[in-house]
Amino acid sequence: MHIRKQRLLTPGPTPLYPPALHAMMASDIHHRTEEFRTVYKSALAGLKAVYGTTNDVLCMAASGSGAMDASVSNLFSRGDKVIVCTAGKFGERWVEIARAYGLDANVLEAPYGSVVTPDRVEEALRAEPGTKGVFIQASESSTGAEHDIESIGKMVRKTDAIFVVDAITGLGTMPLDIEAWGLDVVIGGSQKAFMIPPGLAFLSVSPKAWELGKSATLPHYYFDLKKEKKSGDGGESTWTPATSLILALNEALLYIRGMGMAKLVENAQLLARATREAAVALDLKLFATRPGSSLTAICPPAGMSSAVIVKGFKQKFGAVITGGQGSMKNEIFRLAHLGYFDFSDLFSVIAGLELILRANGHRVELGKGVAAVQTVYEAAEVGVQAAA
Amino acid sequence: MHIRKQRLLTPGPTPLYPPALHAMMASDIHHRTEEFRTVYKSALAGLKAVYGTTNDVLCMAASGSGAMDASVSNLFSRGDKVIVCTAGKFGERWVEIARAYGLDANVLEAPYGSVVTPDRVEEALRAEPGTKGVFIQASESSTGAEHDIESIGKMVRKTDAIFVVDAITGLGTMPLDIEAWGLDVVIGGSQKAFMIPPGLAFLSVSPKAWELGKSATLPHYYFDLKKEKKSGDGGESTWTPATSLILALNEALLYIRGMGMAKLVENAQLLARATREAAVALDLKLFATRPGSSLTAICPPAGMSSAVIVKGFKQKFGAVITGGQGSMKNEIFRLAHLGYFDFSDLFSVIAGLELILRANGHRVELGKGVAAVQTVYEAAEVGVQAAA
Repeated sequence: MHIRKQRLLTPGPTPLYPPALHAMMASDIHHRTEEFRTVYKSALAGLKAVYGTTNDVLCMAASGSGAMDASVSNLFSRGDKVIVCTAGKFGERWVEIARAYGLDANVLEAPYGSVVTPDRVEEALRAEPGTKGVFIQASESSTGAEHDIESIGKMVRKTDAIFVVDAITGLGTMPLDIEAWGLDVVIGGSQKAFMIPPGLAFLSVSPKAWELGKSATLPHYYFDLKKEKKSGDGGESTWTPATSLILALNEALLYIRGMGMAKLVENAQLLARATREAAVALDLKLFATRPGSSLTAICPPAGMSSAVIVKGFKQKFGAVITGGQGSMKNEIFRLAHLGYFDFSDLFSVIAGLELILRANGHRVELGKGVAAVQTVYEAAEVGVQAAA
Repeated sequence: MHIRKQRLLTPGPTPLYPPALHAMMASDIHHRTEEFRTVYKSALAGLKAVYGTTNDVLCMAASGSGAMDASVSNLFSRGDKVIVCTAGKFGERWVEIARAYGLDANVLEAPYGSVVTPDRVEEALRAEPGTKGVFIQASESSTGAEHDIESIGKMVRKTDAIFVVDAITGLGTMPLDIEAWGLDVVIGGSQKAFMIPPGLAFLSVSPKAWELGKSATLPHYYFDLKKEKKSGDGGESTWTPATSLILALNEALLYIRGMGMAKLVENAQLLARATREAAVALDLKLFATRPGSSLTAICPPAGMSSAVIVKGFKQKFGAVITGGQGSMKNEIFRLAHLGYFDFSDLFSVIAGLELILRANGHRVELGKGVAAVQTVYEAAEVGVQAAA
């Protein structure tokens, strides 16, 4: 075990798609040229295609949090009544942004690991017909839980409120039917299922959201969605774009479109299912009541801190996985599936997990978790053959 | 299984060490500058360090076969009596080179999978005291067999013959004590345990070999060891060097030296041992009677062609492994360990192998081969802790 390859196995940044990484080498290009406009237009068209929407999809040099900020500062006004669903650290970020901009937020909180159920949103919408927006995470990355976006979206669309979905880890890991479900703003980030480094945020905007934005009065400058939309229509970005990342994005989108977004989602779903089966085989409990497919949050055996597992992956196998955030720090570890992950990755991860658990006193029959993953692989393969 | 990462798992080219790959981006450098001389000198010093010798070590823009050619054309004369040990496709290459240059070769042949034993070399040396050279593979990559280089070297050193060792897959996978064992010429290649792409050949030359070269009369031009030695002493190569590869080599050598060549060897040995244990657990037979650690050649189950396994790795897991060469084509598949391989790679490979075998009708209990690998990992880890 003298060689331990560095393996990035976190729910973001995720493993890089190598041709996208190599495309970044072509960054000696000026962004106000026809050559770059061709790349930029292609990337924007690709984003629209993988989002699967006719709504506008914008791209900005920022992390996903920038797009969250932009959705508030561009579409709302101080004092607007909104509903904020929070079931983890990223839900808390919505709360912070809403407060920073002086929105009047009705916070629907669910305990970590749990989700805000559609009926609570329905009740809150009924209680306040003047609600201008509902904020949520599609996938709450801090706990691995997935919200019922379809049900909530279909409720919100019947009201005057817009539905603002942080899908930063939801895109590419769960179906998100933007038009049919009424998802007015859908936010993504480059370092997630898009398989490229951090630095780009994406944001789809529905006609209903644009309409609300017309009367919005909150101040903003860098994040100007209207300006960005106009620039994008001309094949440019408003400000200097992160050219290397746009080149990478364009390459990754070609790959994702070639595979099909539905298959990328299915890939994550399969890996998540296999991981849940492995956890059961290793007598470990899942943390989320409604686990999604972007990542699986697993509780360590009783008496073992998850920090031991995170450290074990790094020390024994050179792999970076994540523990819990905030109060969940030692309570969970998170295995990622979003983006450029495959079964071969998962075989290694579970084999490594078995060794780490044993080294720390948990009884594990070697190969049992791996066998659970292999069984899911075999069943999926049979399914594919049957469907063909 | 919609995502299948391309994984290069062959015994050469081997997986690339990422920082070495990235270093190639600095190739906009001229080779006749002080800047590049610094890199080149560092690479040559690094080669000497990992070879573990005070002999000269030369570097040439060529594949390993070029260095094999050079060792004959620079050190021998037409009609020279030599002994050629051959136990596979690479031994046959020595025979071809010896014949191309008109050497008088006594060919000691061993069947594929077997090795030429030291007693046969001893007998041949005794039978012809005028023998000028003995040629051999340290590790015969076509079969996975390893020659007893120490024993044979110690015999050859007592004679006037020089010992020319193709260690292209031997370096970094087995101990090779150049001075103590009398290894006069030791040949390496960049795309093996050196973890970088193909294109560079290495060659150590002992004083005894230089001495023989003085009276050598075979014609040669590009491959001129004396010239190369003189150029190298000045921090340059005779001809235009493959700058990108030298930059990569320099980076990889820093990594290998940091780890220690002995540990790189041990890494391959551990992975090879674990692979052999997995093969046994899966009821598969090893092909080589004296298996080395550069790769493990495994026979498929009776009635199954190894081509099915090679194809299975590619189709199911995007991984490139190798079958047999020539008449061994369908008889074996080869799993590599040399260079930048780790246990996490092996967990995946064996989990994948289990699924491929099952899909083709071989009875396999899922996870059993992986458990064998994990057991070797655990034992090695305990050994490391006990030694610490």
